[in-house]
Amino acid sequence: MSDNQDLRIAVLGVGIMGADHVDRITNKVGGARVTVVNDYSLARAEEISALTPGSRVVVDPFDAIAAEDVDAVVLATPGPTHEKQVLACLEAGKPVLCEKPLTTDADSSLAIVKAEAALGKKLIQVGFMRRFDHEYTQLKDLIDSGDLGRPLVVHCAHRNPAVPNGFDSAMIVKDSLVHEVDVTRFLLDEEITSVQIIRPSANSLAPEGIQDPQIAIFETESGRHVDAEVFVTTGVAYEVRTEVVGELGSAMIGLDVGLIRKTKPGNWGGQITPGFRERFGQAYDTEFARWIKAVKTGAGTGNYIDGPGAWDGYAAAAVCAAGVKSLETGQRVVVDMVARDSVAGA
Amino acid sequence: MSDNQDLRIAVLGVGIMGADHVDRITNKVGGARVTVVNDYSLARAEEISALTPGSRVVVDPFDAIAAEDVDAVVLATPGPTHEKQVLACLEAGKPVLCEKPLTTDADSSLAIVKAEAALGKKLIQVGFMRRFDHEYTQLKDLIDSGDLGRPLVVHCAHRNPAVPNGFDSAMIVKDSLVHEVDVTRFLLDEEITSVQIIRPSANSLAPEGIQDPQIAIFETESGRHVDAEVFVTTGVAYEVRTEVVGELGSAMIGLDVGLIRKTKPGNWGGQITPGFRERFGQAYDTEFARWIKAVKTGAGTGNYIDGPGAWDGYAAAAVCAAGVKSLETGQRVVVDMVARDSVAGA
Amino acid sequence: MSDNQDLRIAVLGVGIMGADHVDRITNKVGGARVTVVNDYSLARAEEISALTPGSRVVVDPFDAIAAEDVDAVVLATPGPTHEKQVLACLEAGKPVLCEKPLTTDADSSLAIVKAEAALGKKLIQVGFMRRFDHEYTQLKDLIDSGDLGRPLVVHCAHRNPAVPNGFDSAMIVKDSLVHEVDVTRFLLDEEITSVQIIRPSANSLAPEGIQDPQIAIFETESGRHVDAEVFVTTGVAYEVRTEVVGELGSAMIGLDVGLIRKTKPGNWGGQITPGFRERFGQAYDTEFARWIKAVKTGAGTGNYIDGPGAWDGYAAAAVCAAGVKSLETGQRVVVDMVARDSVAGA
Amino acid sequence: MSDNQDLRIAVLGVGIMGADHVDRITNKVGGARVTVVNDYSLARAEEISALTPGSRVVVDPFDAIAAEDVDAVVLATPGPTHEKQVLACLEAGKPVLCEKPLTTDADSSLAIVKAEAALGKKLIQVGFMRRFDHEYTQLKDLIDSGDLGRPLVVHCAHRNPAVPNGFDSAMIVKDSLVHEVDVTRFLLDEEITSVQIIRPSANSLAPEGIQDPQIAIFETESGRHVDAEVFVTTGVAYEVRTEVVGELGSAMIGLDVGLIRKTKPGNWGGQITPGFRERFGQAYDTEFARWIKAVKTGAGTGNYIDGPGAWDGYAAAAVCAAGVKSLETGQRVVVDMVARDSVAGA
Repeated sequence: MSDNQDLRIAVLGVGIMGADHVDRITNKVGGARVTVVNDYSLARAEEISALTPGSRVVVDPFDAIAAEDVDAVVLATPGPTHEKQVLACLEAGKPVLCEKPLTTDADSSLAIVKAEAALGKKLIQVGFMRRFDHEYTQLKDLIDSGDLGRPLVVHCAHRNPAVPNGFDSAMIVKDSLVHEVDVTRFLLDEEITSVQIIRPSANSLAPEGIQDPQIAIFETESGRHVDAEVFVTTGVAYEVRTEVVGELGSAMIGLDVGLIRKTKPGNWGGQITPGFRERFGQAYDTEFARWIKAVKTGAGTGNYIDGPGAWDGYAAAAVCAAGVKSLETGQRVVVDMVARDSVAGA
Repeated sequence: MSDNQDLRIAVLGVGIMGADHVDRITNKVGGARVTVVNDYSLARAEEISALTPGSRVVVDPFDAIAAEDVDAVVLATPGPTHEKQVLACLEAGKPVLCEKPLTTDADSSLAIVKAEAALGKKLIQVGFMRRFDHEYTQLKDLIDSGDLGRPLVVHCAHRNPAVPNGFDSAMIVKDSLVHEVDVTRFLLDEEITSVQIIRPSANSLAPEGIQDPQIAIFETESGRHVDAEVFVTTGVAYEVRTEVVGELGSAMIGLDVGLIRKTKPGNWGGQITPGFRERFGQAYDTEFARWIKAVKTGAGTGNYIDGPGAWDGYAAAAVCAAGVKSLETGQRVVVDMVARDSVAGA
Repeated sequence: MSDNQDLRIAVLGVGIMGADHVDRITNKVGGARVTVVNDYSLARAEEISALTPGSRVVVDPFDAIAAEDVDAVVLATPGPTHEKQVLACLEAGKPVLCEKPLTTDADSSLAIVKAEAALGKKLIQVGFMRRFDHEYTQLKDLIDSGDLGRPLVVHCAHRNPAVPNGFDSAMIVKDSLVHEVDVTRFLLDEEITSVQIIRPSANSLAPEGIQDPQIAIFETESGRHVDAEVFVTTGVAYEVRTEVVGELGSAMIGLDVGLIRKTKPGNWGGQITPGFRERFGQAYDTEFARWIKAVKTGAGTGNYIDGPGAWDGYAAAAVCAAGVKSLETGQRVVVDMVARDSVAGA
Repeated sequence: MSDNQDLRIAVLGVGIMGADHVDRITNKVGGARVTVVNDYSLARAEEISALTPGSRVVVDPFDAIAAEDVDAVVLATPGPTHEKQVLACLEAGKPVLCEKPLTTDADSSLAIVKAEAALGKKLIQVGFMRRFDHEYTQLKDLIDSGDLGRPLVVHCAHRNPAVPNGFDSAMIVKDSLVHEVDVTRFLLDEEITSVQIIRPSANSLAPEGIQDPQIAIFETESGRHVDAEVFVTTGVAYEVRTEVVGELGSAMIGLDVGLIRKTKPGNWGGQITPGFRERFGQAYDTEFARWIKAVKTGAGTGNYIDGPGAWDGYAAAAVCAAGVKSLETGQRVVVDMVARDSVAGA
């Protein structure tokens, strides 16, 4: 397509995050517009479409994907629907930006990796937005510069003030820890080979029956150690922190979120970002801007993505599967994952 | 104009900053494109235009302003050319985003304020980009929330590692301190009534004959105190800091620019932003995105700006004129400025 | 006296600070003990003496100074009584650690400087305890190392949450700003030549009639600039901050007082030291330990002090006198002070 | 003994740390003096004694303990000699401040616990100096205040720039990690029940054959989780950090060691403490001052200690023994430790 025309996007799933994406495409990021809105709730789809001039509601998600006035698809639907929807995008030959998880289990993710590889085009980008965050990209650049020497150890903390109703212990692994899985793979450029989930004495303020906090221990291919505290009912704020310890030095991001240092009776400090939208708004904007640009120029190269792809979605699913297994026993579980070079074109 | 069409912009002056703006409009901010490039150096204009598909060079700045394929104008030309160029925009009825200063003296700025007021439309926005910076907007919000109580004192520091050849003592006032003038007016919502420039023992590493650093003391209408250290040959980095001290607490921004906290042999800390483009890149992006949107919707309301206007340019010029006068004597100089309500429509 | 015997000390004035010093000598600093306690309130003296085994009350301050079982004197009496008490110490040939101010005006301080100089012994130390604070000594060492290059500008902030009843505008100069006077002289190693007190719109929460905050501007012999915000009714905490800006870099102390970084719902940060005892407790301990040691070894050298002496007390008094004068007019006042080498032995 | 007389101390072992203690007693902490110096190197003992007026060298450590002019003993000898020397102190009825470890294995430590319990007096204090450090005591106070809610997770980092020749992997557990063992027990007020040592890919700059860094995972009686990175060849500085995550908030100490924030070309930040003497000098001073005072008043109560005792030394030895075992396999090892109430009087 021409670089001068707007990319026409269908957004499937317009809950909080999908609606954010509609707004992002419409008002913040240039070069694209939302032409089709879809949601399992028709009322919700109509509500969001009404706020989006030039868009229409399509009731069936597969019709939305196939629609003539749709050049590319954004999936913000629930995880269990992703598999079929992503495959439909592949079939239609349409680029898709799929919110994590790619699918809810490693097998179906692998099937998608293989289907895309067979197609010979990179059509699938997975929404690990932290790779577009200023702090994480700075940290990655610092590691790659060699300034810290070889990284040996990574410490992560991922804290949410609260979680929605129905959140359970396995979702802490699959919905929260999955970000630390991708951050680890992004920063260290290698796969995670085993996972152990340690289950400390649980937060008495967490909903009954949830194991929270959890401590995850990753080992990577070259033997590096990563630990990640995931604590999703802190009551405090949205805190995301990563420290990399290398042979020549260490570096930390996420310590002081919020730029104002305020001094009031009895204390100094600053505000913490209340939620992921405030913390990662810039990352989402950048992710979308770069994806739209990649899609527009993809015809020439067969590469319609600029960010994590299907393989990254599969790797995350495989590691999380091991994590969920470890959650039952607290013991180390080896990640079950095919070698990348066993899938030609992945 | 229609919200669906790209705004067509002429950029006049494509030195470092103007070229940044061309890139910003072309690649970062949606909804607009550069159709005309102009510079007093034809070669430079051609170089930048060649990088900008869809643009052409127009040799004469007034032809550029008047061109049919130009909906709005960005002025990044030298200060002394602003007066005539802004007036030409008014005459053509075209919105203009004019880099500071509006003009180089208070009288000509006031003439522009009056000309625009007579026209009955807000066409002129002045490029005080700090008003769009996340830190400054957070600080402004904090003040307006009442959380700090009534602000009584503001401390500013503005440090550059180095200045271009030919920079002189008065330019420290007119090119650097002018930002603190606007920040003061923005944060405190009132005018500055007197200025004193204190001239400490000068930096021996500064070019011969430059009074650097300078300490400016502002008094505002309601008697608040602002001091600003301006030091433009520190050899260190680009540092911009503001602290507001109120009746109930204080707050500071600009302390830790650079988000990574790095630990290496012997020390901890982080990088400082080397220059204004790194420090205020986000602010410029936001400024342009909001201006483009305002211009597109201006026909309905007669208001084509979303940010500081001609009056703010005039007020800054009046305060800087007092500053330059004080620079000669070191004594307090009362700002000579008309009352805003004496200019109907300003 | 022998290094193995305890130094016997009379403490005159056992209000909050004097009582602290009694406790300091008795329980924290080795090598000395309090043998005599004196206060204008006999009851108070008896109360403190009762807590101090081995001490007795002496009703008259001059008897206390002259007492046989007193080797050295600590003065924590009100400022107006200092002159006669210090002169009595000189007459008795007894070392004295005099809390600031040395005296309440420059003339009487100069008289004491001359009296001590005539004696040919350094018997008088003045209690500018910041010179013993870890942060200030580190900053002084950093300046002296040349790492920052020649210091050009110093910014100070001195904030108290509240002041005692009866505190007035002049006391802000003489009791609070006096510390910034001494810090300036200590860090820059030169005299202050002029003072201007700027009087911003006052804190509406301050007691009626007090000019608070005040901004002091010092010029030093070599033309350096120092500004100091003194704000003694902030309602917040005890905050003391100093930034030195040199030709090669800058450094700041006092930013994050309190070592724990705490994260609670909505914010991160730490506690601020509530008062001067918490902030400068270590400095007082070190000051006393070093003074006691100096007194014990003074007989050999005629030097019984290890810290600021009578001249420093005089210089501070002269600068504060100019400050009080400036407070009336807001104008710059030249400091009236004799040259140090005009007083042989000062 | 009388509170007015100096406590007479024998210092056994005057290497770097023992010599520091001699200096501390002689010059920094009041109320005590070193009368006897002992070292396995006679030359070293004579060198240190010569610097210490009033002291003499005693060649045999047991003669030193038994000497008539010795009221109390400081042990800074190598760990393997502690057992017999501590027992000799018990036999002589003399208070002893024993540098960690109490002994080098859990069995001998338990034997000492029992011997002291049988005596019915608390004569043994173990040198876990962090309990006297301002940061740790503030953190402990914060936990005990309930402000963070119930602590669930603790993260520790312990980094040394380098280690002495001959340091091996097990010593990382017994000499470095032992501090985190005691910090955990101090902060959480309960015993550690299992230890796992994770062995990441080792630092290529570490001496051949050393497993460095190590990650220790502790579980406590009530199921809390503690992780500790111990990395003793960072080449960077001495860094000690602890974060406590509770049900209502979290707190961290040790982040910004060094109080000056310096800005130089390209970066901001501060110095890191180069070694443990700089970092914990205050803690050692406070530890000694309080111990001396406790010894002086012990006769009345039978309690000659003010800090961690023999039981704390035993508990640390038992946890470290499990750690050394885990170091071989990387697996979790349950701590083998008797119940405290099984030893009457412990």
